[in-house]
Amino acid sequence: MSFEFIENGSPTSASGFLAAGVTAGFKRSGAPDFAMIVSEKPADFAGVFTSCTFAAAPVRVCQQRVRESDFLQAVIINSGNANACTGEAGLAAARQSCEIAADALNIPADAVAVASTGRIGVQMNMQLIEKGVALAVPALSADGGNTAAEAIMTTDTVAKAAAVKVKFGEKSICIGAMTKGAGMIDPHLTAPHATMICIITTDAKISKKQLQKILAVNADNSFNRITVDGDMSTNDTVLFLANGASGIEIAPDSKDEEAFAEALLALMQNLAKRMVLDGEGATKFVEVKVINARSEKDAKLAAEAVGNSLLCKTAWFGNDPNWGRVVAALGYSGAEFTAEKCDIYFGDVPVVKNGGDAGTPEADLLATVKEREFTITCDFNEGDAEYWVWASDVSYEYVKINADYHT
Amino acid sequence: MSFEFIENGSPTSASGFLAAGVTAGFKRSGAPDFAMIVSEKPADFAGVFTSCTFAAAPVRVCQQRVRESDFLQAVIINSGNANACTGEAGLAAARQSCEIAADALNIPADAVAVASTGRIGVQMNMQLIEKGVALAVPALSADGGNTAAEAIMTTDTVAKAAAVKVKFGEKSICIGAMTKGAGMIDPHLTAPHATMICIITTDAKISKKQLQKILAVNADNSFNRITVDGDMSTNDTVLFLANGASGIEIAPDSKDEEAFAEALLALMQNLAKRMVLDGEGATKFVEVKVINARSEKDAKLAAEAVGNSLLCKTAWFGNDPNWGRVVAALGYSGAEFTAEKCDIYFGDVPVVKNGGDAGTPEADLLATVKEREFTITCDFNEGDAEYWVWASDVSYEYVKINADYHT
Repeated sequence: MSFEFIENGSPTSASGFLAAGVTAGFKRSGAPDFAMIVSEKPADFAGVFTSCTFAAAPVRVCQQRVRESDFLQAVIINSGNANACTGEAGLAAARQSCEIAADALNIPADAVAVASTGRIGVQMNMQLIEKGVALAVPALSADGGNTAAEAIMTTDTVAKAAAVKVKFGEKSICIGAMTKGAGMIDPHLTAPHATMICIITTDAKISKKQLQKILAVNADNSFNRITVDGDMSTNDTVLFLANGASGIEIAPDSKDEEAFAEALLALMQNLAKRMVLDGEGATKFVEVKVINARSEKDAKLAAEAVGNSLLCKTAWFGNDPNWGRVVAALGYSGAEFTAEKCDIYFGDVPVVKNGGDAGTPEADLLATVKEREFTITCDFNEGDAEYWVWASDVSYEYVKINADYHT
Repeated sequence: MSFEFIENGSPTSASGFLAAGVTAGFKRSGAPDFAMIVSEKPADFAGVFTSCTFAAAPVRVCQQRVRESDFLQAVIINSGNANACTGEAGLAAARQSCEIAADALNIPADAVAVASTGRIGVQMNMQLIEKGVALAVPALSADGGNTAAEAIMTTDTVAKAAAVKVKFGEKSICIGAMTKGAGMIDPHLTAPHATMICIITTDAKISKKQLQKILAVNADNSFNRITVDGDMSTNDTVLFLANGASGIEIAPDSKDEEAFAEALLALMQNLAKRMVLDGEGATKFVEVKVINARSEKDAKLAAEAVGNSLLCKTAWFGNDPNWGRVVAALGYSGAEFTAEKCDIYFGDVPVVKNGGDAGTPEADLLATVKEREFTITCDFNEGDAEYWVWASDVSYEYVKINADYHT
């Protein structure tokens, strides 16, 4: 490995990035709800976003930045209001938010991106944005990444930030990131789904084109593989800023680029896993792997059906080794496979052999499903394609959180 | 209307049908778990079944009957063991079950169909089948339909049977039915999904070919429109037997056939609705209608996404008029529509206008979502296609039932 995780890593672990998290007043609780990440220098950048037809106003502004801006220098994020389904007024509010931050930072408005998470259908209170910016700018600091990570939480119970150091000979660069998201989590970043928001920073020098390519591939292998509730959000946003502060340039299609992408994937998977572990009401982390399928499409359909099955998720919550529900989900997934060839394992323990009971004593299965984390492997024994997803269970607490969220 | 519902209707409301429900011992609780329906005369018949790749052994036997048998005369149904994922032994057991019943009734084995519901992956205990048959045959009676309906319940809290009388001039025929299913309910009968089992009887004389056509169309407009948990079962079975005992023949492509099909649809929708009302832990019955869509495919994708959304279902349970979750589900459904043209109503109350908040005071929305039954109408304002589904909510009780089902 040419990279390592940094203790207490965050977006400000990368050189030349400042961050702050403050209380603007979006949340009734008085908890921090406005974050700002600023690069000291203009940064190359890339983004992937929700594929929801009702993409929120801030998502549309970010998409415009990706299309039209040469660089970014700041990202503002509020929690407590998604600014989704807010029409032209909402779009104007998102743009104006960028302008307010740009004025305060003395940078162009098109170098500011915005992300929002919270309730859908509520117009933005611009006074709160003004207050957030006014409080955040003087609070910006080179170790503010973790504070920013706290300010973007909604139903998250823990802040989620991390950073990796990637060595290139004697020198090294850093990639830092923060993310949020515990519900409405099933990202398809185009294309993610969830309200997940992730801001990634690096002090490497790397072009927008490289960033976009690496980010999209890595999103497919991290955030797009997780599901809490199967509901994709209107606001999913992943932004990646590269400011070059390390002085190290990553050449296109080089070994260095490969190492960079590999380290980034580890960082994104670390955060993706923590999102599932912190999923609303989650008590389990289940990796669903489908192997030896005819095609990746079949493996994906099958893995996602199991990961999203309400009956599987409630069985996991109940420590119930009920493999019949896994089999049913595979069977309705739309994946093409031969039932009689299908083997299933809970952890390393065979559960289903040739489409029927493998005969393992239930006590052995129970030992696996009682674990906080376990893997369900479905072997179709027909080809060499595979796919995996990471899923949480569905608990009483999940219902409580989502039945009471509004009121 | 040329038909009317019969009080306490059941499969034995149709002339020439006998039924019984007995305790064979499949359920630990000692509740009735074995049902038999017998036609005094050989009956034309049709069937629609799960489209699950892991279709259970009894489903495969029924499919063989549809392909190969000229008539049916009996159906046996056990609850407590699904005989799914039981391989060749399970298939042999399903066939043997038919033989045991055929011997006892002195009819050919290929005139007996079998349906099972319960745990997946457990081999059938043939002694229990023998006991069930031995107890049921002497108990068969012309008013046993409701007893049979009780014996096929699993997590159902109420037995579900009904019958309609269809008038043709001075004469009339009867269509009776019983159904079960409260969880693993999202039938796609080919094609339904759910473990739903429904046995329909009629004393009309009508050909197998007519029955199959009418049954398939009506299943698409009843059972295939319901969802409790979005999980299709391995065992979904709908069988329709017509014994001609009324002496009235329904000619193909006639007005009579239309009237017959219309009455059958009312009967199937009545049962489908009661399945959702009795869905595991259900406290709500929500009709999700998508209207004025570009195509029925778009309307269906959109309606099913809302009906299966865990976030919508938990909001309904919480009496939460959170339309943002409806919008999010429409947005990720894959349906093609224009967000800015979309209007949404809860009952008759406008919630979303042109893709944004319609401005209705929350108290008015609350009044609708507090009802036991309500309709959510999504108007895409783009075409003339429509689709609807019936969905239940997801409650603490749902989680309890499905986390504790096994243990």
